[in-house]
Amino acid sequence: MTARMLGEERTAFLQRDFYQGFIKTCGFKLETLEPGLAKSSLEVTKAHSQQDDFVHAGVMATMADHTAGYAAFSVVSEDSRILTLEFKINFLRPAVGERLICRAKVVKEGKNILVADSEVYSQRDGVEKLAAKALVTLMAVPVEALRAEETAEG
Amino acid sequence: MTARMLGEERTAFLQRDFYQGFIKTCGFKLETLEPGLAKSSLEVTKAHSQQDDFVHAGVMATMADHTAGYAAFSVVSEDSRILTLEFKINFLRPAVGERLICRAKVVKEGKNILVADSEVYSQRDGVEKLAAKALVTLMAVPVEALRAEETAEG
Amino acid sequence: MTARMLGEERTAFLQRDFYQGFIKTCGFKLETLEPGLAKSSLEVTKAHSQQDDFVHAGVMATMADHTAGYAAFSVVSEDSRILTLEFKINFLRPAVGERLICRAKVVKEGKNILVADSEVYSQRDGVEKLAAKALVTLMAVPVEALRAEETAEG
Amino acid sequence: MTARMLGEERTAFLQRDFYQGFIKTCGFKLETLEPGLAKSSLEVTKAHSQQDDFVHAGVMATMADHTAGYAAFSVVSEDSRILTLEFKINFLRPAVGERLICRAKVVKEGKNILVADSEVYSQRDGVEKLAAKALVTLMAVPVEALRAEETAEG
Repeated sequence: MTARMLGEERTAFLQRDFYQGFIKTCGFKLETLEPGLAKSSLEVTKAHSQQDDFVHAGVMATMADHTAGYAAFSVVSEDSRILTLEFKINFLRPAVGERLICRAKVVKEGKNILVADSEVYSQRDGVEKLAAKALVTLMAVPVEALRAEETAEG
Repeated sequence: MTARMLGEERTAFLQRDFYQGFIKTCGFKLETLEPGLAKSSLEVTKAHSQQDDFVHAGVMATMADHTAGYAAFSVVSEDSRILTLEFKINFLRPAVGERLICRAKVVKEGKNILVADSEVYSQRDGVEKLAAKALVTLMAVPVEALRAEETAEG
Repeated sequence: MTARMLGEERTAFLQRDFYQGFIKTCGFKLETLEPGLAKSSLEVTKAHSQQDDFVHAGVMATMADHTAGYAAFSVVSEDSRILTLEFKINFLRPAVGERLICRAKVVKEGKNILVADSEVYSQRDGVEKLAAKALVTLMAVPVEALRAEETAEG
Repeated sequence: MTARMLGEERTAFLQRDFYQGFIKTCGFKLETLEPGLAKSSLEVTKAHSQQDDFVHAGVMATMADHTAGYAAFSVVSEDSRILTLEFKINFLRPAVGERLICRAKVVKEGKNILVADSEVYSQRDGVEKLAAKALVTLMAVPVEALRAEETAEG
């Protein structure tokens, strides 16, 4: 990746854009954003648990996907939107910490297709452990094409 | 799979077990449960959307994973718990309907490892369209082993 | 998918195109091809085994991917080529049969992105068992774009 | 991972074990093996190509899987065998180089389940480029259990 910078305005836009709808429901926060890199966090509550009191796999999957999406957003042109084509996620250990941290990195930046590596860490008593690891395939779509898709639903 | 039945008591237990923590936060309902098969639903609201007003990929991923988990639960012994080892999900079209339906089916039932196919349909004006398709790998873990893991966190 | 037919000439082209390079090395045969559907086979020999005398996971992965690719080829325009963006494959049981059969089906046919479900069966004494199941994401690329990529290598 | 060493005898055994059946057919070489890490290589020929003269996706998938398998082998007890439960692989750019290099690393070493990250690089004129990236889930199985499975075929 060539050296690049995210302008203040663009950063502020992506910060706002990140936090809405389901992401607000879940409570994920965007911590930092650099070209091709995003970091997010979550304060874990009972609202995120599964039947055995671990963090639900769906919470980590959502975090890995969404954070990867904004890592991708940070490297495409301003008139592009990002859609997730697919992802795969491995759950490596039960997440029992009080906080989750996600770090996503674009590993391939193609014309339309981007691929990101996205890792979720469980933090307890200040110690981070890798809890989940994902590979995410994303597509950059011009805003107009997206609107068309919305009405057509392919 | 051999012909089997889920007793009333077991079904009632799994119905209660399904709906708690993050799943309650999201609002997924378990519709039906048969040995190796589970069906769930979701009434879509703004709380499930992403930045372009489609249903968030994380909502569909959570639904595909959790429904697959209970399809697996329905075929293991009562002293086993189910953990998701990993899953992969493809998003086939933007989900813009008012309701999601998920159907999960166990396609391989090993001693410890189970694999399920899980599909999410977007329903609009009574018409269902396949919105996402997942392959989920699950592990049956004896309750005691799970408790040990909880304290150790591997 | 709309009702369509594959012309004789197109079918003959895809039959030839299927069997070359690594596919010839492996020995996979294209059995049938219909719009969105492909079926292939392999006579298993020692050349396909892994360290425990089962068929190697890589053989089934190659078969699942390549067969999915030709299922996709059968529905795109003649000036398009197909590239695999990614796939995921679950190995459900050791393949110990004398023959493998693969059936691939396009489950979503987008403008550029296609998704296929691809299953590998192990056949022994005339009985087929599902040995592996894959989800494959493919991209249709105009021939000229492909040639450009070849020299540039992104 | 705790500091560990591979004895000379064990290394020699795994070197021999690596290269047989389908792996010999393909021509992959094991370059180095350390606890949790494996590196392999392939001299690319026409026998590895697909219809557009790139290296076939199946070649890279086989390499990513097999190399991950031996990274896993290097950390389990001597009476265990390794089976691939599933993997996912993203193809990041057409591989057009004269040589492939694969580096696999165990990222989670559970009691029975291991997860590895496996990357395939295409080398041309001495320059390496990341061509494919995989996440592989493996299971350690006692030799006796494997033999039972072979006759039963689950």
